[in-house]
Amino acid sequence: MTSDCICAPATAPGGAISIVRVSGAGCLGMVDTVVDFRHGSAASASGFNVKFGVIPDLDEVLVSVFKAPHSYTGEDMAEISCHASPYIVSGILDRLCAAGCRLAQAGEFTQRAFVAGKMDLSQAEAVADLIASDSAASHKMAFSQLRGAYSQKLHELKRQMTELAALLELELDFSEEDVEFADRSRLRGMVQETLLEVQKLAESFKLGNAFKKGIPVAIVGAVNSGKSTLLNALLGEDRAIVSDIPGTTRDTVEEVLVLNGVKYRFIDTAGLRETDETVERMGIERSFAQIGQASVVIVLLDGSAVSEDLLPIVAAVKAHLREDSRVIWVRSKADLLLGSKTGCFDPQAPVSGPFGIRNEAFCSRLGIPEAIELSALTGQGLDKLKEAISKPDSDSLAADAVLVTNQRHYDALRRAAEDLNRVQDGLEGGSPTDLVAEDLRSSLSALGEIFGEILPDDILGAVFSRFCIGK
Amino acid sequence: MTSDCICAPATAPGGAISIVRVSGAGCLGMVDTVVDFRHGSAASASGFNVKFGVIPDLDEVLVSVFKAPHSYTGEDMAEISCHASPYIVSGILDRLCAAGCRLAQAGEFTQRAFVAGKMDLSQAEAVADLIASDSAASHKMAFSQLRGAYSQKLHELKRQMTELAALLELELDFSEEDVEFADRSRLRGMVQETLLEVQKLAESFKLGNAFKKGIPVAIVGAVNSGKSTLLNALLGEDRAIVSDIPGTTRDTVEEVLVLNGVKYRFIDTAGLRETDETVERMGIERSFAQIGQASVVIVLLDGSAVSEDLLPIVAAVKAHLREDSRVIWVRSKADLLLGSKTGCFDPQAPVSGPFGIRNEAFCSRLGIPEAIELSALTGQGLDKLKEAISKPDSDSLAADAVLVTNQRHYDALRRAAEDLNRVQDGLEGGSPTDLVAEDLRSSLSALGEIFGEILPDDILGAVFSRFCIGK
Repeated sequence: MTSDCICAPATAPGGAISIVRVSGAGCLGMVDTVVDFRHGSAASASGFNVKFGVIPDLDEVLVSVFKAPHSYTGEDMAEISCHASPYIVSGILDRLCAAGCRLAQAGEFTQRAFVAGKMDLSQAEAVADLIASDSAASHKMAFSQLRGAYSQKLHELKRQMTELAALLELELDFSEEDVEFADRSRLRGMVQETLLEVQKLAESFKLGNAFKKGIPVAIVGAVNSGKSTLLNALLGEDRAIVSDIPGTTRDTVEEVLVLNGVKYRFIDTAGLRETDETVERMGIERSFAQIGQASVVIVLLDGSAVSEDLLPIVAAVKAHLREDSRVIWVRSKADLLLGSKTGCFDPQAPVSGPFGIRNEAFCSRLGIPEAIELSALTGQGLDKLKEAISKPDSDSLAADAVLVTNQRHYDALRRAAEDLNRVQDGLEGGSPTDLVAEDLRSSLSALGEIFGEILPDDILGAVFSRFCIGK
Repeated sequence: MTSDCICAPATAPGGAISIVRVSGAGCLGMVDTVVDFRHGSAASASGFNVKFGVIPDLDEVLVSVFKAPHSYTGEDMAEISCHASPYIVSGILDRLCAAGCRLAQAGEFTQRAFVAGKMDLSQAEAVADLIASDSAASHKMAFSQLRGAYSQKLHELKRQMTELAALLELELDFSEEDVEFADRSRLRGMVQETLLEVQKLAESFKLGNAFKKGIPVAIVGAVNSGKSTLLNALLGEDRAIVSDIPGTTRDTVEEVLVLNGVKYRFIDTAGLRETDETVERMGIERSFAQIGQASVVIVLLDGSAVSEDLLPIVAAVKAHLREDSRVIWVRSKADLLLGSKTGCFDPQAPVSGPFGIRNEAFCSRLGIPEAIELSALTGQGLDKLKEAISKPDSDSLAADAVLVTNQRHYDALRRAAEDLNRVQDGLEGGSPTDLVAEDLRSSLSALGEIFGEILPDDILGAVFSRFCIGK
């Protein structure tokens, strides 16, 4: 590993302050050639000190000094805080490079922290996730991973597997004496238990990934059933904290919304027409196919329509729902309904007409368990809908389970599970101990990849290249 | 002035690190309620120290502590460096506000620095200019103003005027005794000298403002004379350091280019047709009217055209040039010209034809002093053109003169000059001493506005509201 000095801007362009980071043995001397300090020097300063200095003809700066090994990278480091002009930032980088630094690659500071043993690879990856976090859910998972909860869980698994391996290796050493040292049934029990935990962890990726990237939600409904009005009402005051997700193309209309700390991506579906059953069938089919991507499906049923007209939509939704997705039935336009505060109909009107029908009867006629009465206009039912969307997810988030959020980890866990499966089969089928032991070692090695214990440099490089510059 | 605690993000969203700034008496105690420090507390730390801490369930942070009066604002301050997630930044701000801070207004930190006497108003304004600086020129002016060169110049002027005022007031005190204490001719000389300096400074605003906002350049030429090719060639490798100027609307096609450290704004002019003289006259007139806005006018003359066809353009340019603008004549398409390396014509061809004519003859026929032979295709002449555009400007920048860059200062200086003019007239016309003294006091007060000595709160507010949040 190189130990040259690297520098990079650590803040985004704009704002009031910019930070330039420098790391590496000897970097403080380079900082001293760039910055005139009123007193002393960066190289002679003690760690965790801030020094005021002037970069001639460029800027007045504050320099925070960190001494190895008590720094982010474990090396000598400085953070130069300057006025946030791109001209000044590039000027500082130019002078640092003239003094012997080179520009850092993406993630290189964190890579050095990893190499120095400041954090394992899963924690390093959590740094990137933490920076990208934009909801309570994605933040919680990244922060817990950074703080080591995730590593701890994996180390516990690894400890179990190492114990298994030790027992098997012991047997292997004495294999010529044809003695079974390890109690095979106890071994099988241990493998079974470990396998279940690895599988559970691997399976958590689906939820963890959805929490990280946003849970897909489809709003399905007839043309004019109030889809966009509902979306706007949902976005409402929360829009301020909604940020663009990188990768969201402009072609796909996709709104992002954080409810109860969980991020949701709303998939646009074409409006349906329930009137002309035969002609529109194809359009309905296409829209419903889109529903297959969603984890949550909100079905908007026009509460002012004759309820029998809605039967084809209900039937189609039921036919297309994914087994593991949730459906939320919504009876829209509640403000037009009998007895509602802004209702424009006579409260004494019969309850059997299209506008007068009560919710229980409405649901029963459509064969759905219940429907939230909603008026995007008055806000009636909106909180109930938000709760219906987010409660199950925020509950599973609050369960404090360790969730896998990283594709690389998921792949490693799946391979570990496959290896353990073979170990289990081997033990049951009486395979030679050395073959079983090899599968076990392979499983251990897959697990170790997550920490970065045994990763080749190119994979390491790929991991850190996904970081931003300056981290 | 309030002394409550304020907080704000000081960095732009994005990047690897974000900084949250906190200032005010008692703010360190508030930081202590938000951050768990491994050792000690922010309130008990000494200034210029960095402390590692954890914000529970939110982030690991570094906190730089500054103690009054040794901080940017002169108050107790902290800078919290966290992972650059908008979720984390808003979480920190929320917790600080819950602990008793309020969100800072734009420029409020610098306003506090001004109120605490850390800098005068012109230096405070230089902070905003420095952050916005995007070329060597705008940076140099802002940095010199921040470092006090500008204030020093003004203080020197003020000292002269105060001396004048003292002499006059002395006379005023004894006015009933009808004695002229001050030597009026010496006084007149001093006023004259001071007035000239104030006028010179006020006049420097034109250049200073152009350096700050970009010097307007018009490229004039016939349709297909290579305007956009030239612009692209000029932009070339420099494009990376070209940034969008705020306020540039998308309607106006305006390219910004930094040459030799000076920023230029290229004004788009409609292509001219020199063929059909009568019909196109109006179009030509309209394009040439746009030239009136430019400080530098580049006239592209098609070097492969019959030179007499270009006469209307040359005549129109000469007719529309502003007195103080510079014109650069360019003979384009030099690669097509006789003797050029890529020339497609026989070098033995007669030199009198449209393509064969020598540059001296070309210029002489058109009645222009000289023309740069340019090929945007091969790059021939490009450096010469860049030099012609930027040399005069970078020379006047290098002259190290103090330049006024701020409209508010310019207005104050103009008023000071008007007052001094009246003082001069009064002295010459033998006006009563008390009237002359009043004009002199008014002039001094106009000068004082620049430092912010006697500004009403609403003007102060207007100055700082132009800052960004967090500064």
